[in-house]
Amino acid sequence: MDIKRVRERLEELFALAPDPRGGATRLAYSPEEARAMRLVAGWLEEAGLSARLDRFGNLWGLPPAGGRLVTGGSHVDTVPNGGRLDGALGTVLAVEAAGELEGPFGVLVCAGEEAPRFGAGTLGSRQLAGRLGEAELARMRDRDGVSALAAREEFLRLLRDIPRLEEPDPLSRVAAHLEVHVEQRRWLGERGASVGIATAVAGPERYRLLLSGQSGHSGEARMPERRDALCAAAEVILLVEGAARKASSTVATVGTVRVEPGSLTAVPGRVELGLDVRGTDPGEAGELVRLVLERGRGICARRGVSFSARRLSRAAPVALDEGVVGLAERVARREGIPAARCVSFAGHDVQHLARRVPAALLFAASSNGVSHAPGEEVGEEDLERTYRMARALMPELAREYGGER
Amino acid sequence: MDIKRVRERLEELFALAPDPRGGATRLAYSPEEARAMRLVAGWLEEAGLSARLDRFGNLWGLPPAGGRLVTGGSHVDTVPNGGRLDGALGTVLAVEAAGELEGPFGVLVCAGEEAPRFGAGTLGSRQLAGRLGEAELARMRDRDGVSALAAREEFLRLLRDIPRLEEPDPLSRVAAHLEVHVEQRRWLGERGASVGIATAVAGPERYRLLLSGQSGHSGEARMPERRDALCAAAEVILLVEGAARKASSTVATVGTVRVEPGSLTAVPGRVELGLDVRGTDPGEAGELVRLVLERGRGICARRGVSFSARRLSRAAPVALDEGVVGLAERVARREGIPAARCVSFAGHDVQHLARRVPAALLFAASSNGVSHAPGEEVGEEDLERTYRMARALMPELAREYGGER
Repeated sequence: MDIKRVRERLEELFALAPDPRGGATRLAYSPEEARAMRLVAGWLEEAGLSARLDRFGNLWGLPPAGGRLVTGGSHVDTVPNGGRLDGALGTVLAVEAAGELEGPFGVLVCAGEEAPRFGAGTLGSRQLAGRLGEAELARMRDRDGVSALAAREEFLRLLRDIPRLEEPDPLSRVAAHLEVHVEQRRWLGERGASVGIATAVAGPERYRLLLSGQSGHSGEARMPERRDALCAAAEVILLVEGAARKASSTVATVGTVRVEPGSLTAVPGRVELGLDVRGTDPGEAGELVRLVLERGRGICARRGVSFSARRLSRAAPVALDEGVVGLAERVARREGIPAARCVSFAGHDVQHLARRVPAALLFAASSNGVSHAPGEEVGEEDLERTYRMARALMPELAREYGGER
Repeated sequence: MDIKRVRERLEELFALAPDPRGGATRLAYSPEEARAMRLVAGWLEEAGLSARLDRFGNLWGLPPAGGRLVTGGSHVDTVPNGGRLDGALGTVLAVEAAGELEGPFGVLVCAGEEAPRFGAGTLGSRQLAGRLGEAELARMRDRDGVSALAAREEFLRLLRDIPRLEEPDPLSRVAAHLEVHVEQRRWLGERGASVGIATAVAGPERYRLLLSGQSGHSGEARMPERRDALCAAAEVILLVEGAARKASSTVATVGTVRVEPGSLTAVPGRVELGLDVRGTDPGEAGELVRLVLERGRGICARRGVSFSARRLSRAAPVALDEGVVGLAERVARREGIPAARCVSFAGHDVQHLARRVPAALLFAASSNGVSHAPGEEVGEEDLERTYRMARALMPELAREYGGER
């Protein structure tokens, strides 16, 4: 690995579409993501791979020989004001590894991984795995009303000079896939590990909670007569926090609040909360949701506020192939790399690809736990060890899963 | 009073700029408020009064004889999606009364009374009373960045066909002023009163509370390590509610919440709350604010969240002239109208005019307590009694305060 080149490429991606708040903004299926894909396509050609685009907008780097291959890769889109490593690190390291290795090793950069623009992410990998169709893409809208389908078509148009991969099911040629990602909390380092080997990806469950009370004049509405939806919401927010603090493998977050009328001179009449629950144990996560909905209803009833919940999405946790995890552990031991099994609470493309092909997810230890923000960091030694591990694991995946039959 | 005409005029104002949510939207110094002013100007001429506009955008209806006069009136702007009575009722009844009465009786419709557009209201009356200058108007901005001063100039331009009142201090010709307003809670009816006689207007005190914690990934940020600004804010919201419930003459409301990053996949890192505190006892209101700031800081400190408060405004409560209140009570007794002394927790133009001229504020009992919303209602009998009281009070004000010297 050319560490200088890796750092330079990360900076090049980061600088491509700077956000005024200090980070980078390359939203799913945006012109900025397209520019990032074009940049990577150039690196693929430099590495001796052929850059190809599939009809879902995923970018492939194919080795000279045809046939089945082992791919590495991640994504190049970001959340608004994202950091320099999320997606980018796995992409840059995959180009590096496929360029160094001889044999059936390629790159797969999935499009539209981040959820903020369309309210749901992993768009490219889900289409590739046959788990997301055009009808659903047409229903997903960004805040300007643009559908994910229309955005994808514009994205493909912007990248029309990259040759198309015309086969109907590009994933069928993949023998195994490896995604490297920067760790999104500070956990591995505390355990002396440079690399995390994910055994499972938590399934997020998302709800919109709607609390309806009675608005009124902030001066004239008497306290005992109020049915303030925001005060009820405050109790629900603390209920969610309390329940998640007691859980062992589940986290829960109220991340969005919308207040109506939303005026300094009005008692809040209506509040919408966005709830995100993630766990690796479906039983515990389900119990947490049940408790929040039941007690939330009770809190609101006591206040004369109506309470309803709409489930926006629910994904089951995905256990990654134990064979792949074991293989990664053996490689770590052999290479003398401190690694630890871990769980991913964030969603990744790999969880969808894993339903079709053996797939591994490795984390490079974060030095500060920052994620989805400009301060994402990984130390030199952890970066070097993660790369060494990925580079060593890819031939093992090829041997084990048929890339080199 | 021609009750049919009064109801028709109220509907005409209401229908002038309908809001898709069912109410009316005529914001301060907007083209919609200008259209409402033009409509009222026509009614003034029909009533035999001369319509004049002062340089602050206030609309005057002057009787044929010059000299000092007693004015009645309210305002014709609304909150977003406002009701059919707030401001409109007092305006329509004032035109009715000045038209029926012979003598020095006029109308004064103040511009820009409602606060939502510029974050502060009673713009026309405060300028008229010499309590708000152009420098401050230039600093007030609506959400599109338009200053209140620029909006006022456009408002005057739209109404340039209404003759200007050129005197430097138009308020100096007013001997006394009477504002009629629909009640903004349900209190008078429960006490058997049709009309409320305000003895004081509460002083609002407004703060922006800023809570800064640490954002993070909603899946990856571990519960015990979180510094969730929204969970801290939830405790502060409940603290405010609890403190106000214990107070006797003070109410407090958190009416606005802004969450950053405001995403389903992110732990809230920063929350801004808008706090409104109103009371008639400055000691109690001050004590409530002190307690909220002190305990709020403590709540946040325990959570590793920083807390700061910025005062947006503070107005002292205004006691209305006891002589005027007593006069109104005597008129009610004489006319056999069930009336009760009350306090206004909402701000009104009259509180600023009262610093310069004797001024009365009468409330028509609300039949449902709805205010600043499409459902505002007043019963037929309460309306008739309120009008009769206003019409009887104006000559008494003229006799007492010099309109008919």
